[in-house]
Amino acid sequence: MVKVNGEIKNGDLEIEQLISLKGDARKGVSVHGMIYNIRDMGDFAFVILRKIGGLIQCVYNKTGDEEEKEILKEENSVVIIGDVGDEPRAVNGIEIVVSEIKLLSSPAEELPFAINKRNLNISIENELPIRHIVLRNEKRRSIFRLQSGIVQAFRKYLEQNNFTEIFSPKIVAAGAEGGANIFKLEYFGKKAYLAQSPQFYKQMLIPVYERVFEIGPVFRAEKHETVRHLNEYIGVDFEMGFIKSFYDIINMETGMLKFAFQYLKDNYNDCLKKLNVELPVINEIPCVKFKDAKEMVAAKYNRKIRDPYDLEPEEERLISQLFKEEHNSDFVFVTHYPIKKRPFYAMDDPENEKYTLSFDLLYNGMEITTGGQRIHDYQTQVDKMISKGLEPKDFESYLMLHKQGCPPHGGLGMGLERFLMKIIDEKNIRSTSMFPRDINRLNP
Amino acid sequence: MVKVNGEIKNGDLEIEQLISLKGDARKGVSVHGMIYNIRDMGDFAFVILRKIGGLIQCVYNKTGDEEEKEILKEENSVVIIGDVGDEPRAVNGIEIVVSEIKLLSSPAEELPFAINKRNLNISIENELPIRHIVLRNEKRRSIFRLQSGIVQAFRKYLEQNNFTEIFSPKIVAAGAEGGANIFKLEYFGKKAYLAQSPQFYKQMLIPVYERVFEIGPVFRAEKHETVRHLNEYIGVDFEMGFIKSFYDIINMETGMLKFAFQYLKDNYNDCLKKLNVELPVINEIPCVKFKDAKEMVAAKYNRKIRDPYDLEPEEERLISQLFKEEHNSDFVFVTHYPIKKRPFYAMDDPENEKYTLSFDLLYNGMEITTGGQRIHDYQTQVDKMISKGLEPKDFESYLMLHKQGCPPHGGLGMGLERFLMKIIDEKNIRSTSMFPRDINRLNP
Repeated sequence: MVKVNGEIKNGDLEIEQLISLKGDARKGVSVHGMIYNIRDMGDFAFVILRKIGGLIQCVYNKTGDEEEKEILKEENSVVIIGDVGDEPRAVNGIEIVVSEIKLLSSPAEELPFAINKRNLNISIENELPIRHIVLRNEKRRSIFRLQSGIVQAFRKYLEQNNFTEIFSPKIVAAGAEGGANIFKLEYFGKKAYLAQSPQFYKQMLIPVYERVFEIGPVFRAEKHETVRHLNEYIGVDFEMGFIKSFYDIINMETGMLKFAFQYLKDNYNDCLKKLNVELPVINEIPCVKFKDAKEMVAAKYNRKIRDPYDLEPEEERLISQLFKEEHNSDFVFVTHYPIKKRPFYAMDDPENEKYTLSFDLLYNGMEITTGGQRIHDYQTQVDKMISKGLEPKDFESYLMLHKQGCPPHGGLGMGLERFLMKIIDEKNIRSTSMFPRDINRLNP
Repeated sequence: MVKVNGEIKNGDLEIEQLISLKGDARKGVSVHGMIYNIRDMGDFAFVILRKIGGLIQCVYNKTGDEEEKEILKEENSVVIIGDVGDEPRAVNGIEIVVSEIKLLSSPAEELPFAINKRNLNISIENELPIRHIVLRNEKRRSIFRLQSGIVQAFRKYLEQNNFTEIFSPKIVAAGAEGGANIFKLEYFGKKAYLAQSPQFYKQMLIPVYERVFEIGPVFRAEKHETVRHLNEYIGVDFEMGFIKSFYDIINMETGMLKFAFQYLKDNYNDCLKKLNVELPVINEIPCVKFKDAKEMVAAKYNRKIRDPYDLEPEEERLISQLFKEEHNSDFVFVTHYPIKKRPFYAMDDPENEKYTLSFDLLYNGMEITTGGQRIHDYQTQVDKMISKGLEPKDFESYLMLHKQGCPPHGGLGMGLERFLMKIIDEKNIRSTSMFPRDINRLNP
């Protein structure tokens, strides 16, 4: 029998540790990693290791023997023993002068594509089938490191603001958003669906926790293929009770975005640098009514309003352009969407019967968030369902929320991939979904 | 147009803020919440508000008018204005002497079940259809507050240990764990499945990030109904590269558990108290080989070994009992499981061809984690697939990992509901799944 007490000491050092070493501690260090690049300089070679924290340069004096050829191959996993020295031209200001390389594992084949270039010249169509290989590229892997930083920041902010994290079921008996874009599932002889959002559950938990959030997968069976839709994406959802108006939600999101950008600057600056990202500065975010926004854009850019009840993608782009030009803001909240375009749980605007107390957030031309105040009164919700052609008895569990009492509340849902896509200024949402699911794609 | 800058000031105070108030600041405070309980004392009433941080006692002097009867109802959402006073007999040491109550919202019906008792007398069968209502109970809601604390702690520990958080797709083209327990899905005319685990994706990202984790839903179409299985549960998964042996994984998990228990003591003590939980102290966790454990239990408790390749639930219970009795440990790692019972990606034990370099963690009689070292060599993995009757060409994307090189690695998966169930000493896993999915249950 063995006993373990939870301390992990394998002796291999990470980049930050290597940088901080002084004096004799710099001698005979052990470092593991995968060989990212080899630059043969004749008598010696620069062996660049890929490690958790980035790349590190190692200087290897060649012997010319056979074993060496086996060891010096890209994507080999190795442990290097050597001495740390200063090298201002190396990326971390240090390099390792190698005394020994131990081979742990070798690829069976060479890479199908050179992944160690600074900028990869590969189309998204060619990249996606080998995405997990392409992610070994230093710049590519920074994209999803940044993603992990964003969700860390969001969670930290929401926890600080007294939100409780929830995990709602993804296999459900009814869709929250209605419509045809819902995946069907065989569930032990019963009909089931994949959750289009955690909407019902978020609301049902308002009387329990007052403020809840969830960051998890949502599923939309959209049949069209665009650069801004995925069939499975990561939803950032929160819901809060006792709001005075939907501006409380807008304020909370604004605070969350400010916090996240600062958090990324403080903790993920290396990723931002590798991706050449300059994060926007948020002081205030302008809010404009849906109807006004449409008219402003029609007037300024000489456009006809074709559909008074919805924003076309081009209109979203122009609203953003207008607010960038006139208010220097990358973000704009468009508020008071028409009832026609909002789900049955949206609260109507008491001041204008055609509109709801809801909003979208546009970020550089694209909708990244939809939110608003919800109906909390039982009879109002039942009437609204009926007016939308729905059967209240199909929503019995959900309506218990209203029947048994709940405070005024509201919330929002953000698409994580869209947010990241705008941050790193990519045009196709498949760039910011690690293994995207679309109408043609289930693999890898 | 409005501009918002992200500050939320609605003036209502939370419990912690109320407790910290001094002097004149205690006068005329505003507090919102839902009425949990009303104790009518004749001339006055104790109105207990349910708030994010727990319950708070308010003292209301009755007037006897009609409006008052509407306001003083359980599950009403209200804002109370009043003065804070010391009251050693109240749960927080303070109470609010009410000068005004504003009604925000009222339930349409009385609760189907009194949720404001300290201990609820309701069967799980009766509870589950109204789970979201029952969760309004102070003790019940603590269960899932504790859950949110556990995942916070796990993430914090893993981030400190250089793990990158990932979000792997849940709609997949092939199951990682094989077998029949996989949900089928119609995906735009193609066959698709719900992911049984993030196994393939975790491994595929080892050469990218070296250490990755994911906490998210996993789906198992188990046809049997037990108190320890769910058809959808929250998997806590991590995977790490450059391990020297699977004991590195065991060490990492041990460290994570120690950290989590300390974190819960420091940050979720109120929930622990409400649930009467005494967390176990972990110093060292014993490890015992599968074969030895079976024999020890057979000898000590006079049992016959029926199936030499698997542990029966009763054996798991007895192994735990033995290690509790002899080593005072609530946890025990059972290592070196037979090849027969482990998936195709498990690495064989080079010292014994019948066993694998793998483990389960038992916690008070129940398996809560399965983990182990994985095969990293391409040819070894292909051969193993064939020996298990699988077609390597069905796993082309996954095998790119091995073909293009990856370091020795391994990881584990833990069931969050099982872990929480053992912490709070519940017998049915439906107690620790907020909205459980089983063979008969899709609602709410």
